[in-house]
Amino acid sequence: MAGKLRIGIIGAGRIGKLHAENIAYFVPQAKLEGIADVMMTPEMEAWAKGLGARIVAKDPKALFADKDIDAIIICSSTDTHADMAIAAAKAGKHIFCEKPVDLSVAKVKAAIDAVKAAKVKMQVGFNRRFDHNFRAVREMTLAGKVGDVQIVKITSRDPAPPPPAYVGVSGGIFLDMMIHDFDMARFQAGSEVVEVHATGAVLIDPAIGKAGDVDTAIVTLKFANGALGVIDNSRKAVYGYDQRVEVFGSKGCAQAENDTPSTVKLSNVDGVIADKPMWFFLERYRTAFIDEMIAFVSAVQEGKDLQVTGEDGLRDLLVGLAAKKSLAENRSVRIDEIV
Amino acid sequence: MAGKLRIGIIGAGRIGKLHAENIAYFVPQAKLEGIADVMMTPEMEAWAKGLGARIVAKDPKALFADKDIDAIIICSSTDTHADMAIAAAKAGKHIFCEKPVDLSVAKVKAAIDAVKAAKVKMQVGFNRRFDHNFRAVREMTLAGKVGDVQIVKITSRDPAPPPPAYVGVSGGIFLDMMIHDFDMARFQAGSEVVEVHATGAVLIDPAIGKAGDVDTAIVTLKFANGALGVIDNSRKAVYGYDQRVEVFGSKGCAQAENDTPSTVKLSNVDGVIADKPMWFFLERYRTAFIDEMIAFVSAVQEGKDLQVTGEDGLRDLLVGLAAKKSLAENRSVRIDEIV
Amino acid sequence: MAGKLRIGIIGAGRIGKLHAENIAYFVPQAKLEGIADVMMTPEMEAWAKGLGARIVAKDPKALFADKDIDAIIICSSTDTHADMAIAAAKAGKHIFCEKPVDLSVAKVKAAIDAVKAAKVKMQVGFNRRFDHNFRAVREMTLAGKVGDVQIVKITSRDPAPPPPAYVGVSGGIFLDMMIHDFDMARFQAGSEVVEVHATGAVLIDPAIGKAGDVDTAIVTLKFANGALGVIDNSRKAVYGYDQRVEVFGSKGCAQAENDTPSTVKLSNVDGVIADKPMWFFLERYRTAFIDEMIAFVSAVQEGKDLQVTGEDGLRDLLVGLAAKKSLAENRSVRIDEIV
Amino acid sequence: MAGKLRIGIIGAGRIGKLHAENIAYFVPQAKLEGIADVMMTPEMEAWAKGLGARIVAKDPKALFADKDIDAIIICSSTDTHADMAIAAAKAGKHIFCEKPVDLSVAKVKAAIDAVKAAKVKMQVGFNRRFDHNFRAVREMTLAGKVGDVQIVKITSRDPAPPPPAYVGVSGGIFLDMMIHDFDMARFQAGSEVVEVHATGAVLIDPAIGKAGDVDTAIVTLKFANGALGVIDNSRKAVYGYDQRVEVFGSKGCAQAENDTPSTVKLSNVDGVIADKPMWFFLERYRTAFIDEMIAFVSAVQEGKDLQVTGEDGLRDLLVGLAAKKSLAENRSVRIDEIV
Repeated sequence: MAGKLRIGIIGAGRIGKLHAENIAYFVPQAKLEGIADVMMTPEMEAWAKGLGARIVAKDPKALFADKDIDAIIICSSTDTHADMAIAAAKAGKHIFCEKPVDLSVAKVKAAIDAVKAAKVKMQVGFNRRFDHNFRAVREMTLAGKVGDVQIVKITSRDPAPPPPAYVGVSGGIFLDMMIHDFDMARFQAGSEVVEVHATGAVLIDPAIGKAGDVDTAIVTLKFANGALGVIDNSRKAVYGYDQRVEVFGSKGCAQAENDTPSTVKLSNVDGVIADKPMWFFLERYRTAFIDEMIAFVSAVQEGKDLQVTGEDGLRDLLVGLAAKKSLAENRSVRIDEIV
Repeated sequence: MAGKLRIGIIGAGRIGKLHAENIAYFVPQAKLEGIADVMMTPEMEAWAKGLGARIVAKDPKALFADKDIDAIIICSSTDTHADMAIAAAKAGKHIFCEKPVDLSVAKVKAAIDAVKAAKVKMQVGFNRRFDHNFRAVREMTLAGKVGDVQIVKITSRDPAPPPPAYVGVSGGIFLDMMIHDFDMARFQAGSEVVEVHATGAVLIDPAIGKAGDVDTAIVTLKFANGALGVIDNSRKAVYGYDQRVEVFGSKGCAQAENDTPSTVKLSNVDGVIADKPMWFFLERYRTAFIDEMIAFVSAVQEGKDLQVTGEDGLRDLLVGLAAKKSLAENRSVRIDEIV
Repeated sequence: MAGKLRIGIIGAGRIGKLHAENIAYFVPQAKLEGIADVMMTPEMEAWAKGLGARIVAKDPKALFADKDIDAIIICSSTDTHADMAIAAAKAGKHIFCEKPVDLSVAKVKAAIDAVKAAKVKMQVGFNRRFDHNFRAVREMTLAGKVGDVQIVKITSRDPAPPPPAYVGVSGGIFLDMMIHDFDMARFQAGSEVVEVHATGAVLIDPAIGKAGDVDTAIVTLKFANGALGVIDNSRKAVYGYDQRVEVFGSKGCAQAENDTPSTVKLSNVDGVIADKPMWFFLERYRTAFIDEMIAFVSAVQEGKDLQVTGEDGLRDLLVGLAAKKSLAENRSVRIDEIV
Repeated sequence: MAGKLRIGIIGAGRIGKLHAENIAYFVPQAKLEGIADVMMTPEMEAWAKGLGARIVAKDPKALFADKDIDAIIICSSTDTHADMAIAAAKAGKHIFCEKPVDLSVAKVKAAIDAVKAAKVKMQVGFNRRFDHNFRAVREMTLAGKVGDVQIVKITSRDPAPPPPAYVGVSGGIFLDMMIHDFDMARFQAGSEVVEVHATGAVLIDPAIGKAGDVDTAIVTLKFANGALGVIDNSRKAVYGYDQRVEVFGSKGCAQAENDTPSTVKLSNVDGVIADKPMWFFLERYRTAFIDEMIAFVSAVQEGKDLQVTGEDGLRDLLVGLAAKKSLAENRSVRIDEIV
């Protein structure tokens, strides 16, 4: 494909704004053509035009219909993702869809089918695969430095819990938070999850428990290649966003520690004090958000395989649903039990 | 109690020798009085006398019968521990018993009962509670620096697997290896385990699988106080003994990293290279073995509570048996299911 | 000042290109208006226009004469810096001048005088003051966490030596390399250097010695506030760019370690292997180059004090000249000995 | 030599007590035979006998005269070291002499001559050569991992200053404190110092200045092999004993960081907090004190070369005297200027 990839964005909330600005400033191979948001305001319009957007609209059809738009980034509310993806595919646009594609397996499959039928590409927004640290771990494994993978271990803790109301619509901790870690686990293991066991507790906010969810969870995984995995999640780490990955194998162990704002440590009478981790995902994964977009643009322009597909999104969802079932039934659940 | 605590040791294998030398050289409050070993050799006798032992015998009765011996350290083979403890208790001796007391719940209970009946003290050899790093973590928790404990996370990997024949008699990975971690988890959580889920795989040596065991395992725990725990074990970490503990709570997270022979790092064209962990338990827990003995001697001499009791040994065993059952039945198992 | 700061750049070598792209992509408060280079080629012109430059010329007068240019960035060869700065000042343009302003004290003073006379601002390109780590150290000191500064200690080693021919025209190690560290030392000490002692050796490339320079040097400093300083330089650290700063004081010690591409470490039979430092200044100070430009633009637009002035450049030069004299005469040299 | 090395100790102050207890408990190849101290008290006598000393005396002649004593450890006051060494040599005893042998070059030479004449061995108490970290650095250099040594860099800071009165009799910072670092620098460089430049300041306690000394000092060194060195000393690091060594060479850089009581770090709202260094030399060099004694005993018993000789003590003294002269005269001083 010659020239810049011309992009329209649906949804200008926090993540939509981030993608828009990243494309405008940091992805020279792409051009921001349009932004659609059902809640479009004059301020948002001014911002969009300041980024060079030619089309500013409430209705995403304005983007689907524009023949000069090559690709659509879907950042609208989760319940609209699948429909938007299907519409974009039918319009012949390539798709970058924020995660999750949907909480319903059937709808995700429908979106994947539409993408296949239209022969377009769809990348799902599992940005952590593009994190410099986690990518370096994966590259060590691929280079044979870890040997056969035996244990994948992920620590993933948020700095502050979401409002309890959120967990009702989000699908809960396994589908809104740990799903990122399921994707990371599959990425690092280089294999699919076949069985899941989840344990959880309400230790941070009783309101989360009342909303039917847990706020602290540990999940063990079995992979098709025989490796084991474990993920721990907490909705509240007072020291900030704790994002670590460890891959243990027959030849060694690769560990990614947290990123920090600086390398400075202060030695005084109280101890040796270093920086806390980056506060949350916008800081920690700032570069990963740019790199996932560059990867998407490159894959489309060069006709190459995507690094995170709709199929990945589907499999992550299945693991998340199995984890929910495991917690509810207090037993190990095989992925093939989830239809 | 005035004067030195006078100690007799049963069993002069690797661990018995270690305790004997530690007492002779590093525990000034105690005196090594005698050593009994069913396989007593002239070399062993010379070694024992070199350490100042007054009694050297094949039959442990020589120690039980000696009125100048205050305490017995039991380092004979596992299957004899409980009987030796009962005999020592009946002889009015205080007891330091290597772990496990026994693999049978009934026999452990019998030993505990004998100890109670005799009004002697019995410490079980969970030496890791005396490790400087893990103790520092526990002290942080007790000082309130971690807040309410929410997650206890233990990494515990051996540098090399035992002979496959060993796992048949040892009780397997949950009873010979992870039992140390169950004890550590209970110690760090400050609470009892109520439910266990185990997953495992044979990834290192197929002969271990043929012997009916796994060589890689991940276990999740629920504690009575609501906290969650997770332990991962591997029989073979090529980089050495990987012994880390992490306690996460409402106010922070305390992490103990591996000990290393030196703090030196070398920066060259290949990277920045630091020392591997200490090779195995004799190196890593060298000081902990001394400190557990000092703690035992002090507790007896000063009539204070022990830091690891027969009851602890029993509870660790119950967790181990529950983990075995969980792995066999592929479901969560409550501790109260184990009789 | 309303609107974007309109900038012209003189010199499109490595550093000029870097500033041009940084302004175009990462400094939204500024606009790249023009680029002049005596060696302007069609490729360079295409690149400049691609960045949005309105004026592309060989002669810098094209920039000085343009009434819509507010500020000039001087990246031409060192021997032209002072003349360009004087010409820019006379044209009423604000100035960002790459370091050093000149190797002659008289010419630096002339440039400073011209800047003062024209009532414009001139920032000198000591980018390391804007490094996130070194800035964090300085902020700790300013916040009182280090107490009274007693020792400033700087490690500064390049990954590979320059061609020996370079050291003849560059002024040598004290004026082309350690001058950055003199500036950093003054910045961290918050005080002026009053005396210098230099020692040096040719340990890397004999050709550097033949060119009259050393390739390894250690300099001690005395500051007006009583603190001491020490800097070590090497032209060749095989593991990459070694850039560390330590400030020791009455209340503690702040240390900035090297930045690395990732936080990943690999434990294997060879040790625990972490990333080398970033390779060289373009990687390590990537963000610092952007931040110094944002600081320059902000200071001009908001009429605030600059963070690195022509006076700083002059004082760094005096320290460098004193170090040269110290090495040549093998004695301590006071700054006020340098006219 | 068959059997244990039989040792008499002169001086039972802090360091004499340390050596006595180390020999009694941790050096199985040696036996403590006697202790002499001009201030012998009943308490001291009881302590000495508790350690197994056969001879307890005020007069060191009791040790020199005893034909069953093989070696003498000299821990009396500094001004008596040389005389004691000469007397011990004349009595045919091997000698372990605490540093410094003397502050007078002539007296040190006299002691060395006496040792040679008597064909006994004399080790000087530069214990840091036996530190596990610094030894590991040296071994890396000897193994060729650092390449040709180019820079030796030592950070050495005490946790608290001595009483000002002490610096009058001790010889001052270069002879009582930095002399350890001169020895370490020579050890790590594998070469002799040929020239010194010292700078210093009184930043901690004005009384130290009144006593004619500095409390903060930086010294640069030139070695015979061309390498450069730098040492910084402070009498007061509020965070504890700061003891780091760095050796930079053509193939890499080896760095020894401080030892800490534990590896535990606590992440909380204030940062990531790790242990301070060990408090002072008794903690930090606990094992090094034992290892230097084992090395001494082994060298005598096996007739091997010592690792620190009287000649080393002399050369360290010459560097210290040169540093004093450099500070006083504010110029570089060659070692051969010191007679």
